[in-house]
Amino acid sequence: MELEFVRWLTEQLATQPQVALGIGDDAAVVEVPESRQIVVAADMLTDGVHFEVCKHSPEQIGRKSLAVNLSDLAAMAATPLACVVSLNVPREQAKTTLPQQLMRGIAELATEFSCPIVGGDTNVTAGPLVVSVTVLGCVATDKFWTRSGAQVGDRLLVTGSLGGSISGHHLDFTPRVSEALALAAKVDIHAAMDISDGLSLDLSRMLEASGVGAIVDTPRVPITSAARDLAKTSGKTTLEHALNDGEDFELLLAVSPPVAEQLLQEQPLSCGLTDVGEITAERQLRQRDSEGKIRPLEARGFEHK
Amino acid sequence: MELEFVRWLTEQLATQPQVALGIGDDAAVVEVPESRQIVVAADMLTDGVHFEVCKHSPEQIGRKSLAVNLSDLAAMAATPLACVVSLNVPREQAKTTLPQQLMRGIAELATEFSCPIVGGDTNVTAGPLVVSVTVLGCVATDKFWTRSGAQVGDRLLVTGSLGGSISGHHLDFTPRVSEALALAAKVDIHAAMDISDGLSLDLSRMLEASGVGAIVDTPRVPITSAARDLAKTSGKTTLEHALNDGEDFELLLAVSPPVAEQLLQEQPLSCGLTDVGEITAERQLRQRDSEGKIRPLEARGFEHK
Repeated sequence: MELEFVRWLTEQLATQPQVALGIGDDAAVVEVPESRQIVVAADMLTDGVHFEVCKHSPEQIGRKSLAVNLSDLAAMAATPLACVVSLNVPREQAKTTLPQQLMRGIAELATEFSCPIVGGDTNVTAGPLVVSVTVLGCVATDKFWTRSGAQVGDRLLVTGSLGGSISGHHLDFTPRVSEALALAAKVDIHAAMDISDGLSLDLSRMLEASGVGAIVDTPRVPITSAARDLAKTSGKTTLEHALNDGEDFELLLAVSPPVAEQLLQEQPLSCGLTDVGEITAERQLRQRDSEGKIRPLEARGFEHK
Repeated sequence: MELEFVRWLTEQLATQPQVALGIGDDAAVVEVPESRQIVVAADMLTDGVHFEVCKHSPEQIGRKSLAVNLSDLAAMAATPLACVVSLNVPREQAKTTLPQQLMRGIAELATEFSCPIVGGDTNVTAGPLVVSVTVLGCVATDKFWTRSGAQVGDRLLVTGSLGGSISGHHLDFTPRVSEALALAAKVDIHAAMDISDGLSLDLSRMLEASGVGAIVDTPRVPITSAARDLAKTSGKTTLEHALNDGEDFELLLAVSPPVAEQLLQEQPLSCGLTDVGEITAERQLRQRDSEGKIRPLEARGFEHK
């Protein structure tokens, strides 16, 4: 299957100026603008864990497999350069148009984000469908964001709204790449990450990396309508959905109070920016309710076992 | 499993100057020397196809999964920079030390080739063991080798000896990275690739990419002792093993006759360089026997179905 598939794929791909040599040789060659560092992220999606091949379309699965990687680039304030895609395709699916549809889903998002597919590998086996994507981006030297720079007194901002991703957002979300680049060009961001496993769990990781604590002002947490709908039947509150559901793929940012004030006033992103709390010297994750009462907040996001 | 595993892994890894930010954030950051292009290759290895987890040690499997990628960098004359490793681990193997042993096999080769592991992903599922590696290298702008530059009259050279890789070489081969860099610094190479699916099949790919043909002087093809041993019982000739067995991971090079002469005389590589034929205008793959008789050569290397 591989040779024909590669030929088909090569015909599908839009050319991009940064690709010096695309699919078809032993490796691809990508141009890097001067004075840039390379940013690299890899996420592997497996049937039954991150998607269900019996439920989700191959285009959706493909799209998601690149989108989660682009979200990682966004979390670093990196500009996408290129991606490589390796597939493990079950024998029965290899005989269908699934591999083509899946690659089409990836290729469409790749074109949208100027992140062309430049290589990869395809195996046909008994095993489940596995989509392994590695994405390359670039960033001006030492201008990348990290999780570890949050400072005591910083405000915590999130893009968009949180929770209820399982209802559909986890498949069709827009990685916050342009939002990250817009913010990076505008202000100094102390720490950043994408919220992939739930706000409470991902925030706890930022706190650990930065050696600080935080208080989340729970009444301020922006909640999706999907989370509100889910809460009607899930037995969880809308807040629990917003704090602990996985796969929001929004950005979590720590910025100085003046920067927070500027951003909240200007609201430069169409997805919105919300202040959800503050960084504290006390190394605990806590929450403050509408009455100002402070108590511990458990980090309970989604962890793939 | 993932968090502890990442912690363990981070402790194992030697630091390298080109890594600005390693494992533990949303993505890694890698320095690129000035005036370089990025070379990227990806190979995914699956249990039952490229290795057998019941037969090969996790260290061997890990080593091979990086080695095949480094061989692709060698084929482009690229210097290794970094790699990312994504694992799909079956539940029962996740409870053992297999993931650690496998990563140790990768990390040892990564250290040897200054190609540090900077990221990746780990999933635990029902499915087979899948090891997906993406490797990054760099090359001086537009100095990368391709398959497509072979010219009529060029000599065809191969490193090392061919055939019988299944007896062990496919697990413990040394990717020809330093050999490629030594040659690239010394002479002009018109076309190059690594022999991963057998000389006849890979040569046919170089010919197609270059729009030329070739005659292989079969008596000159360097044959491994493993191929000679196999031929005693396999029902194939030693030459058939050398021409068609997969996973030699030697380099196939097309060079001008004067360069060939220089290299064959100087023999700058300890693995040896052998002239195995010539590039022809007639777009066919042919062979010439010891009596000078020319006939077609079928491209019959190893293709994973």
